[in-house]
Amino acid sequence: MMDIDTRQQVSGNALESRVVRWIMMRVGNPRVLVRMWNGEEFCLADGRPVACLEFRDRRVIPELIMSTSVGFGECYSKGMIEVHGDFVAFADEITRAITEKYRGRYNLQKIHSLLASVRGNTLSRSQQNVQHHYDLGNEFYRLWLDPRMVYTCAYYEHADATLEQAQLAKLDHVCRKLRLRPGQEVIEAGCGWGSLALHMVQHYGVRVKAYNNSIEQVSFAREEAARLGLDSSRLTFVKDDYRNITGRCDAFVSIGMLEHVGRKHYRNLGKLIRNCLKPGGIGLIHSIGRSRPAPVDAWIARHIFPGGHIPSLSEMSEIFEPFEFSILDIENLRLHYARTCRAWLANFERVKDEVSAMYSEEFARAWRLYLAGSSAGFHTGTLQLYQVLIAPPGNNSVPWTRKYQYGESETPGR
Amino acid sequence: MMDIDTRQQVSGNALESRVVRWIMMRVGNPRVLVRMWNGEEFCLADGRPVACLEFRDRRVIPELIMSTSVGFGECYSKGMIEVHGDFVAFADEITRAITEKYRGRYNLQKIHSLLASVRGNTLSRSQQNVQHHYDLGNEFYRLWLDPRMVYTCAYYEHADATLEQAQLAKLDHVCRKLRLRPGQEVIEAGCGWGSLALHMVQHYGVRVKAYNNSIEQVSFAREEAARLGLDSSRLTFVKDDYRNITGRCDAFVSIGMLEHVGRKHYRNLGKLIRNCLKPGGIGLIHSIGRSRPAPVDAWIARHIFPGGHIPSLSEMSEIFEPFEFSILDIENLRLHYARTCRAWLANFERVKDEVSAMYSEEFARAWRLYLAGSSAGFHTGTLQLYQVLIAPPGNNSVPWTRKYQYGESETPGR
Repeated sequence: MMDIDTRQQVSGNALESRVVRWIMMRVGNPRVLVRMWNGEEFCLADGRPVACLEFRDRRVIPELIMSTSVGFGECYSKGMIEVHGDFVAFADEITRAITEKYRGRYNLQKIHSLLASVRGNTLSRSQQNVQHHYDLGNEFYRLWLDPRMVYTCAYYEHADATLEQAQLAKLDHVCRKLRLRPGQEVIEAGCGWGSLALHMVQHYGVRVKAYNNSIEQVSFAREEAARLGLDSSRLTFVKDDYRNITGRCDAFVSIGMLEHVGRKHYRNLGKLIRNCLKPGGIGLIHSIGRSRPAPVDAWIARHIFPGGHIPSLSEMSEIFEPFEFSILDIENLRLHYARTCRAWLANFERVKDEVSAMYSEEFARAWRLYLAGSSAGFHTGTLQLYQVLIAPPGNNSVPWTRKYQYGESETPGR
Repeated sequence: MMDIDTRQQVSGNALESRVVRWIMMRVGNPRVLVRMWNGEEFCLADGRPVACLEFRDRRVIPELIMSTSVGFGECYSKGMIEVHGDFVAFADEITRAITEKYRGRYNLQKIHSLLASVRGNTLSRSQQNVQHHYDLGNEFYRLWLDPRMVYTCAYYEHADATLEQAQLAKLDHVCRKLRLRPGQEVIEAGCGWGSLALHMVQHYGVRVKAYNNSIEQVSFAREEAARLGLDSSRLTFVKDDYRNITGRCDAFVSIGMLEHVGRKHYRNLGKLIRNCLKPGGIGLIHSIGRSRPAPVDAWIARHIFPGGHIPSLSEMSEIFEPFEFSILDIENLRLHYARTCRAWLANFERVKDEVSAMYSEEFARAWRLYLAGSSAGFHTGTLQLYQVLIAPPGNNSVPWTRKYQYGESETPGR
């Protein structure tokens, strides 16, 4: 009997070990040392492992077989998987390996992207999605964001910039691109905690109507506006879905909202912008993007950003082309977003005990993974960050060169 | 009998007059004074007419009914239609009227664009297309291009720049975007008369292999290279189709060739660039584009650029997305191209008698219309000019900001 038991265990271990090896191959054979719950260790890839990936429990295997993404995310959050060593380097390596493994499957990914975006975001579903992420509490975000609470890609204009400086530089970079002039009307769709709206009103003398569906964020933004003495003739924060935006404006701006809109709604978003923008107006969409169509990572879609879609430029064109917007300028800031995420993660590591106490350790671990994974996505090029500057068709009052974005006065019209 | 004859003529005139009015409505009711062969004049639109459009012959009517574009182009070339007044203003007004008339027909235009690009360009057909346009003779182009013979959009960096200065500024703008370093290998697809290749070798110390399918242009370029003492270790002009490009490079550049490639071949072009570019390389595609998909103007397709297609950005994505190129930067220079075309047209007006003598008056009139029409296309926003900067996936040696494009030294890597 004992003999048989031992044999079964050995063959069970051998099988599990083989399955884990198969899983590692499926994610592109990353250079990590795998440590099994029984102490077995191996590294299939050549070269020095960047970190040690510990499977602490055999129950991770069926989860990883079902979905490497969801399985890994959930098991890591629950502590059944642990990573020893540099977490950012680990995330980079895993992302690089998976990305290279799945390179070239363009048509398949395009279809996946299409299928994943069949489901639309109704007004109420959008509200739920927003609550899921942004209504976690201002105290939570305050722990690791910069003081202005800017929760989008920063702009590291100078190599030694801090996160706070880079976020301020981003606000100015956006304002310069929009060529804001005192007295102009601006509509902002998805204003977060209001940092850009406040900055535009304070430093560019424009009037802003800023929309956001998160009550927590809007409350924060309204308090800030009141504290700074900005009354409603200059700045209004509207707690509403972007689809309920009304009015006309000289500049339409949306920073980090498109990711939540859902591809199905792109054409309607374009129509809305077209109706808002005056003929001589200008618009800026700042969004995470991709270099090819692909669905959102399954774990992210389930636990972090439900209802989201990260578009490639051809997908994003569905906003612009039906309404003949002239694309004036596209800038890719992906390396800036990788650095932004690393700065957030560094802050987060310092407060993760507080976060665990506020929510749970599982929550804190999930967010740690999300921030490191996002950094890795931008660093490896799986994710891009596009700033797209647009004008209504036939608007010839656009600048001739982009020197105005870099501090030089504009070339006069010709 | 006489009574009947007169009645027939009157009713014939009345019918023709009505048909011409219908034609003018079909092109969006432009603000032009129409003068008929019988002396009748009318202007249907409100406001002061920008020019007088004279139909000198009743035979224009069936032509215009068949196709306003081809009919107008051919009848104007033959002198059956004349335009009195400012020709550029006339072209702008007609283009504006047509564009506004057909605004919003997005799905229909998208289908037309797709259908128009079903036919591919075989190697021999491409050769014929190139001969049709570029092998007209270097003497012809020398009459109205700048001394460097740059036949693509200039870059009016300063308001008072001449065409020659603006073309030089364009060459430098492209070189700066590519961050050329001495000793690098560059492949150029579609090099025209060689201006960029010569400039890159002379001023940036790179080695260039430049391809072109026009024997006239390549001969010119080779003579220039010999005159400047640039031997084949530094610069080679290859008389061949872009599809036969081989080798690896640090920078891949193509200025004004994509318009001739044909949409069917975009993915193969992308594959070719992907195979050529080293992992740390960079590419630049400079091409006329559109703000939405549409077929090439029928007269242009028949008489000026057979086999061409002008893509929207979503169509252009077929080059980049299957190979996961990271789009680093897109700049729209449409107003620069409008000004470039006007500068060419102004030169052309001065030499049109010479051109008529070289070819025929019909040819000279056709080219006059083509240049004015192109200017109008860019000025009204029917046409765009995109400079698209790309990098292979995962190339992190890209610059952090775009200040390097505007003379500042690069931000050091982080």
